[in-house]
Formats: sequence, structure tokens, C-alpha cells
Amino acid sequence: MDLAEALPLGELAAAFAALPVFPLFDTAYFIISVLYLKYEPGAVEMSRKSPFASWLCAMLHCFGSYILADLLLGEAPIGYFSHNSSVILATAVWYLIFFCPMNLFYKCVSFLPVKLVFVAMKEVVRVRKIAAGVHHAHHLYHHGWFVMMATGWVKGSGVALMSNFEQLLRGVWKPETNEILHMSFPTKASLYGTVLFTLQQTHWLPISEANLIFFFTMFMIVCKVFMTATHSHASPFAPLENLLCPVLFGSVSSGHPGHHHEHHGASHEVSHPPPPPLPAKSKEELNEGTRKRKAKKAE
Amino acid sequence: MDLAEALPLGELAAAFAALPVFPLFDTAYFIISVLYLKYEPGAVEMSRKSPFASWLCAMLHCFGSYILADLLLGEAPIGYFSHNSSVILATAVWYLIFFCPMNLFYKCVSFLPVKLVFVAMKEVVRVRKIAAGVHHAHHLYHHGWFVMMATGWVKGSGVALMSNFEQLLRGVWKPETNEILHMSFPTKASLYGTVLFTLQQTHWLPISEANLIFFFTMFMIVCKVFMTATHSHASPFAPLENLLCPVLFGSVSSGHPGHHHEHHGASHEVSHPPPPPLPAKSKEELNEGTRKRKAKKAE
Amino acid sequence: MDLAEALPLGELAAAFAALPVFPLFDTAYFIISVLYLKYEPGAVEMSRKSPFASWLCAMLHCFGSYILADLLLGEAPIGYFSHNSSVILATAVWYLIFFCPMNLFYKCVSFLPVKLVFVAMKEVVRVRKIAAGVHHAHHLYHHGWFVMMATGWVKGSGVALMSNFEQLLRGVWKPETNEILHMSFPTKASLYGTVLFTLQQTHWLPISEANLIFFFTMFMIVCKVFMTATHSHASPFAPLENLLCPVLFGSVSSGHPGHHHEHHGASHEVSHPPPPPLPAKSKEELNEGTRKRKAKKAE
Repeated sequence: MDLAEALPLGELAAAFAALPVFPLFDTAYFIISVLYLKYEPGAVEMSRKSPFASWLCAMLHCFGSYILADLLLGEAPIGYFSHNSSVILATAVWYLIFFCPMNLFYKCVSFLPVKLVFVAMKEVVRVRKIAAGVHHAHHLYHHGWFVMMATGWVKGSGVALMSNFEQLLRGVWKPETNEILHMSFPTKASLYGTVLFTLQQTHWLPISEANLIFFFTMFMIVCKVFMTATHSHASPFAPLENLLCPVLFGSVSSGHPGHHHEHHGASHEVSHPPPPPLPAKSKEELNEGTRKRKAKKAE
Repeated sequence: MDLAEALPLGELAAAFAALPVFPLFDTAYFIISVLYLKYEPGAVEMSRKSPFASWLCAMLHCFGSYILADLLLGEAPIGYFSHNSSVILATAVWYLIFFCPMNLFYKCVSFLPVKLVFVAMKEVVRVRKIAAGVHHAHHLYHHGWFVMMATGWVKGSGVALMSNFEQLLRGVWKPETNEILHMSFPTKASLYGTVLFTLQQTHWLPISEANLIFFFTMFMIVCKVFMTATHSHASPFAPLENLLCPVLFGSVSSGHPGHHHEHHGASHEVSHPPPPPLPAKSKEELNEGTRKRKAKKAE
Repeated sequence: MDLAEALPLGELAAAFAALPVFPLFDTAYFIISVLYLKYEPGAVEMSRKSPFASWLCAMLHCFGSYILADLLLGEAPIGYFSHNSSVILATAVWYLIFFCPMNLFYKCVSFLPVKLVFVAMKEVVRVRKIAAGVHHAHHLYHHGWFVMMATGWVKGSGVALMSNFEQLLRGVWKPETNEILHMSFPTKASLYGTVLFTLQQTHWLPISEANLIFFFTMFMIVCKVFMTATHSHASPFAPLENLLCPVLFGSVSSGHPGHHHEHHGASHEVSHPPPPPLPAKSKEELNEGTRKRKAKKAE
């Protein structure tokens, strides 16, 4: 890439990385997060019967990334809640999505073109959080590569990584699966992203932080908008994983039930409860359609 | 209230707030806490088969508030256990309640008039803890309103908020309910109390801390003594909640099965295990009678 | 013991206590830990389907002691992962045990004479960790006896104390038992060991730290090597416990099903799910044979 081309792009990337996320992008993050909470079976009923528990779940969905990162780094998990304006904003979003008269707010934000804009804005926040997490961990542990990667990962994945316990708060308990055993796209993308950001932070990847934020955000926006618009669950990482996993791990990773059967003649230790019939499908895939139908029914 | 009346009350409140809780009030707190542990099904058997696990459960019951507050604020959850005298006192209470020859100690402390005194003294400690929690959080986060409220709340509620995990330690797992989904009276009262103390701490409530401690303690003592003496579970908050919840949340809060049915025609998303038949009744209500009978039988 | 005899022993003990654990003893610790993970039902299948989850489980097995101690003391649970070389070494051990071609590495390390050496080396690390944990807690809480004992205990027991949650990561949930309710030998030995080290640290036990490390390590090595070689599960603490527990707790501790029945006529509160038929047998005892057979079958 010649310099003339690079300069405007560099400036664009720098401007992009400097965009303030509060309040617009954060609001979009809260809206999509609480929307997904509303899709969960029983969430609407819980909001009527136990509004406080519903509010707490919404706060976990909105701020789960900060809670997890603080837990990992030995800081106060409740620390982020000292940002009163963010909490009040998230509370307002929760209240409007669950209790707006005639469900008006919910209908507006789940109108597909509008929703896609919010999905894109949420990805901007996600990637910023990954970068900030890696940066913060680097500040505490200059050479703690694994610490940086873990912090960036939990910042990107957010509440998904504590889904078993968020469900427990709602009175639901599904121990046979979790986000680490069966990774959804955002969690997997956050994992790969945090590796890239850690390599960049430790100068192993010759790219500026602003450029990496820009390009990775564009990638995430394209993927998530496409997947949301088409209800497709084809993982963009599948081709690469199908190449590497059989070599490294003697099989494909969980995402390819066909390949799963081909390579697994030998290892049939199923003394624990059988995994869900399509283990490759993440929670996201199995639930999204059902959730939306139930959410509509519940209004 | 004219000044002449106010001065003695102010002095009384100040003297009351300055009362040292250790060792007398703390002992009462430990006694009532361990008593409620003993009421739990299987607790006596566990004390015989796994005395260490029983002791650990008792410690969670006695010091759960400190553990949770420290967890929230990123401090050492085990920090309070450096107060050796408190731990030894709680251990002695546990030992006497579970292992006293002829169950003498248990019979003494569960004699109703004696028990009511201890119940009243426990409420003194509870309210002090809420105030101390809010104060401590204010010290760390001067404007962290939500942090103050959360800290005060967990200090007041104690082990109840981690009941699922305290039960797990005893080999019991009941994911369909938890203290946030179905709040018992002490937990709900602690929630309202922490809001009041936070408003007082941030000067929005024009009352001195000592006065607030005094009045709120009197309120808690009257309620808890009455509820313990009469085995009544009528929540004193019910009238206010019945007014506000339909307006704010389109229904009544969990405590009114009748209203629950009236207002819930639309939201029947019950794909998770059905809630207990009388969702309004808290764990406390459903269990207390059963627990006491089993505890008696086990002696 | 006369001085002439004492001096060489004292020097031996001091030299022993100063032995660097990294990398040889740590490697042995990792090998035995990951070996026991491989024995778990479903572990091999999980390594093929969800290698990242498998790696994370292995990390919990290798570093669980550090994670738990940091959690207790309010430090960053991920702090130890800043030791990149340890993490890379543990990762290499995990990879070799699960993915070595023709399972060569697994076959080598599970060859009994070799395995017994590693078992002995693991005990060296365990005892060092207990001593270090007590020492570290003493540094933070000079008079916090219970804090010192708790820290030493979790350092010695490691992942066993979080077994319910390590299993949850693998999609397994067994709430009816846990390591505190039914202690395996290493956990119980770590508990007794931490008491000894705390008494030594607070000068109540008139023995040097180096000597205590030496003698306790020898005791642990003899017990664990004997138990591993003979598949025996007779606890060396049983005679002492059978003396003390009936006196202190009105029964024997969980380890003697016969005595359990004799002394438990009165306390049959079994409203929680019935304990496993042989409650005395620890997870270790019930599973080891089954695990090894399944692990062999899965190769």
C-alpha cells in the first residue's frame, strides 16, 4: 500500500478509534443486549413477577464484560457500576424494552433495518472493549501474554461466558452446555480478536492499534450484520478451522457434526449425559428462532 | 418535633448507634444464623458425617455478609476471618448448637421468648452492617450510588444471597429458585434499607445516620419479632408494592399469587421448569414449618 | 536426637526446601494433574470436539491452587498466568498427553514405575505450595490464623476444591457431592498439613519450616506412592479420626460406612437426594478404576 493511500486510511482509522462510545454506541450495545435477554424463554414473565431479578439480568447482559474482566484482574467486579450515567442509561433501555406501553420501543428497535444498525454499533463497542482489555492487562502485566489474551477475551464475549450463572439467576440451569464448550460466533471471534490485539500490543504484529481496531471492527460488522439479516449461522472461521483442527487436534472443532462422526470412531466415552444432538450448533443457533417467536407471543 | 423532644431522642439514637456489637449482639447473630442452618433438611446428618463441611456452612451463615461485600469490592473475601475472636465465637456457637450433650444449648436458645430476644439483637447487627457497608462503599466510590446500594444490600442479606451455593456445599441443588427471584423478607428489607442509607449518605435524605439506624432497626425488630412469634409471613411492604408495581411493572411483584394470575394472561413463556406452585411464598415461608419439625425429629 | 545427627538432617532438610520446583517438579505436577484429567469420563472426547475447553480444564488442574489462593486473598486469580513459561510448559504437557501420535507420551508417563516417580515429585510441589501459601497469608495477615490455614489448604488441594465447577466446564454436573463433603486423601492431608504449617509459622510448633517441609513431604510421598501402587484407599488418618470423631462429633467422620450406620439411628433427615451408597468412598476411590479403563478404551 503506497503512502498516499495509507495516510487517509490511517487518519480514518485513528478518527474511528477515537470515536467516543458513550452515549450512542453504548446505547446500541445495551439495546441489542437487552433485546437478546428478552428473547430468552421466560424473560418477559420474570420481568413481571420479579422485576428486580430482570433488571439484574439486564445489567449482567450490559456490563458482563466489565464484571468478568475485573474479576479476572482482582479488581472490584462492581467497579464499573460507579459510572452512574451508564447504569441509568442501561436501566432506561431495560425499562423501555420490557415495559414500554404497547411494546412500542421493542417494536421500533427490532425492526430489522434499525436492528442491523444497532448490531453494527454493538460490534464497534465490542472491538473497543477487546482492545481496552488487552491494553489494561498489558499495563498491569507487561509480559503476561495469557493475561492480556484472557482479559481481552472476556471483555469481548461479555455475559456469554457467564451464561450458566446468568441463567441460574433466572431460575434456569443447563449444565450440559456452556459457552466455552460450544462457542458462539461472538465468543470465538473475540477469542481470535484478543490474540490479534495481544500480538499487536507486544509488537509481534506490525500494525497500529487504530488500524487493527478499524479492520477488525469492519470484519465483525460485516459478519454480524450478515448473520443477523440472513439468520445464517455459517461461521466465517469454518474453512480455516477445518484445515487446522484435524492436523492439530486429530479432528475438526465443534462446528461440523459431519466431520465429528467421521473422525470419532475411537472416542465414545459418553458416560456423561449425551451432548445435544447437534453439538455443533451454538446456543445462539438453537435458540434464536424459538426465542423470537416466544418473545412475539409474549407481547 | 420540637427541639426539647429531639435532643434526648438524638442522644438515644447516637448512643444506640455507638453500641458495640461484639460480643453480645454478634453472638445473637451467630446463634440465630446457625439455628436456621440447623433447621435445613439434612444439616444435622451432615454435621455428623462431615463436620468440617457443617462448620464451613455455619461460617458462611455467620460471615456471609462480609464475604459477599468483600467479593463485590474486590477485597479479600477471607479478610474478615482474620478476626480470630469472631471466628472462634461463631465456631463455639456452631459446636454448642450441633453437639451440646442432650441438645441442651439448642433447647435453650430455641425457647421462644429467648429466641425472640436473639432475633431482635440480630436485627440490630443487620442494620449496622447495612450502614457500615454503605459507608465503606462511599469511602471507596464517593459518587457510586449503585455501588453503595449493592454493598449495603449484601451486608444486610448475608448468606441468603448465596443460598444456591451454600446449599451446593451441603450437596443440595435447587436452581429453580434463588433469593433474588423470590426475595424473603430480610433480603427485601435490606434492599429498601440500603436505598435509604445511600440516600442518607449522599445527603438526599435529611436525617442523621444515627437516627436512621435507630428507626430502621426498630422497624426491623418489630417486624421480625412479630413474624417469628406468630409464624406470619405477611410482608409489611405488600401494601406499598401492590400500589406501585402494577403501575411500574404492569403487575404485582412476586408475593401475590392471586394478582399474578389476573395480570398474566399474555405472558406464559414457561419453557423453563414451572415455578413453584406458590411463587409468592419465599423459601423462608415454605420451609420454616417443615424445617422445625425435621430439626425436632432429628434430635 | 543428638546434635551430630541433627545437623546433617537439618542441612538435608534445608537443601530439600531450597530445591527449585521449576521446571522438573512442576512438570511432574502437570503430568499427574493432566493424567487425572484424562481419566475423567468424556475428557478425551472433549479434547477432540472442544480442544479449547479441554485446554482450559487442564489449566485449572495445573494452576487451580494458585487461582483459588488468589481468589481467597483478593488478588488477581489470573495473576499466575503471567508466568508464561509455566503456562507454556503445562500446555505442552496437555498437548502431549492428549494428542501425541500413537498416544506415546501417555503410555510412557502412565507406566507404573515412571508414574510413581512423578507422583512422588508432585507431592514435593504440593507441600511446598502449602508452606508458601501459609507464608504468604502470614505476610498479609500476621495474626490471621484461619486465613493462613485456608490459604495453605487451597494451595495444597488445588483443583479438587473447585471440582464441581471444573466439571461444569466439561458439561458435567454432580451437585450431590463435593470435595468438602467427601474429602479425598490429598484434600484431607492438605487440611491437616496446613494446620501444622500454620502452627509452625506462628511458633506454636517448635520445628523449623525446612524440617516440617521435609518430614511432611516424606509422609505424603510414602502415602501417595503406596496408594497409587496398590490402588488402596485406606486413609492413614482413619485410626486417629476413629478415636477423635466419636468423642468430638458424636460419630465417625465420613470414611466408615459401618460405623456410620451404627451411630446414626436418630438422625435420618434425608429429604435431600440420598448420598451415594458408599458415602465414605471419595470421588477418587469410586472413579479411579473406571476412569483408567475408559481412558484405555478411548485410545
